[in-house]
Amino acid sequence: MAANLDRLQRSVGYQFTDRALLEQALTHRSFGLPNNERLEFLGDSILNCVVAIALFERFGELREGEMSRLRASLVCQDGLHGIARELDLGEYLRLGEGELKSGGFRRPSILADALEAMFAAVFLDQGFDAAKTVIDRLYAPLIAAIDPRVAAKDPKTALQEYLQGRKMALPTYTTVKVHGEAHAQEFEVTCEVNALKIRTTGRGASRRAAEQQSAENALAQLRKS
Amino acid sequence: MAANLDRLQRSVGYQFTDRALLEQALTHRSFGLPNNERLEFLGDSILNCVVAIALFERFGELREGEMSRLRASLVCQDGLHGIARELDLGEYLRLGEGELKSGGFRRPSILADALEAMFAAVFLDQGFDAAKTVIDRLYAPLIAAIDPRVAAKDPKTALQEYLQGRKMALPTYTTVKVHGEAHAQEFEVTCEVNALKIRTTGRGASRRAAEQQSAENALAQLRKS
Repeated sequence: MAANLDRLQRSVGYQFTDRALLEQALTHRSFGLPNNERLEFLGDSILNCVVAIALFERFGELREGEMSRLRASLVCQDGLHGIARELDLGEYLRLGEGELKSGGFRRPSILADALEAMFAAVFLDQGFDAAKTVIDRLYAPLIAAIDPRVAAKDPKTALQEYLQGRKMALPTYTTVKVHGEAHAQEFEVTCEVNALKIRTTGRGASRRAAEQQSAENALAQLRKS
Repeated sequence: MAANLDRLQRSVGYQFTDRALLEQALTHRSFGLPNNERLEFLGDSILNCVVAIALFERFGELREGEMSRLRASLVCQDGLHGIARELDLGEYLRLGEGELKSGGFRRPSILADALEAMFAAVFLDQGFDAAKTVIDRLYAPLIAAIDPRVAAKDPKTALQEYLQGRKMALPTYTTVKVHGEAHAQEFEVTCEVNALKIRTTGRGASRRAAEQQSAENALAQLRKS
């Protein structure tokens, strides 16, 4: 690990009692054992929980589905990757030879996993409240930037408003398949945004649910691009 | 609320400081506001986190994917419903007229949601460690019953061994559909267990993934029956 872990700990705002936990969190499986694979599972759970608490406390007016959507947008790989980049996390990673050569220290999934693993390392080092403090601090700018009136919109509405704001034509929803018997039908719907060359599919137990799912997938593609 | 909340608190092993939180957790949306919808979102996150911690600490030999599968089987509606029934949670629910008449107090989804909401209520009442203690206690029998050598198996292997152990014929996997272009295909596979009259469908980006999904769905049906 070339870079100085003290600098990382200052950026994160947390000093590890057991520094070996931090080192493990920064170790990709390509480097050998112990690595951060199991820590990532634990860290992902802690992150989801802490972000749920933050949304619950902050946005009393949001309903369950709205909070779920908001959380998904915050804890996704993109969100984690952005924070990992701010921390220069790539500089501290321990990667195997192959990953090192292929630029693994810049790969969003590797960075996101290491950040989640670090949350677990803080939890194992000092408990839930310490992990919560670290996550709350790193996520504060993202959570402060949320406009609940926008973020909580259902995916079809959010997509429509995004396109209207850019003077683009509205998406076309097409039901391409319905299967199952009357009491347990499944709908398959495509959502096409011609101006952006996006075409996604959604499934659901109703046409409306399938459309929302396809719009959600289109929004996910937009966020990636 | 006909039944005495003291009895429920004794069964759960937790005394609320703010009893209104417990009452809200037991209030279905059909009854009015405040109800347990938002609490359920929070409680689900706390439950997932606490079970992840328990699995992480207890089963050091399991890999990430194995822990994820195990957790999914523990925090699913069936698992929650089983615990809710042991607590006689249905007796304490506050339901609207319609739900009351149609037997909502026995409905697995309503019971599971109320139990998750109760975990959130404990968290709001006394913090994460209190909620963790309650969940750990209620889940202890389920976690103690886990055989990691069996539970961690992939779904196809688990299903095969279940059937072999009962001298039943192995399942048949049939690819019923492949769609999408070469680089983004989706497979649809059915899994049939004739002896048990089970037929499930799975989808995935590869035949193998779709088979595993169909086997997972078959196992879910087995667990329900």
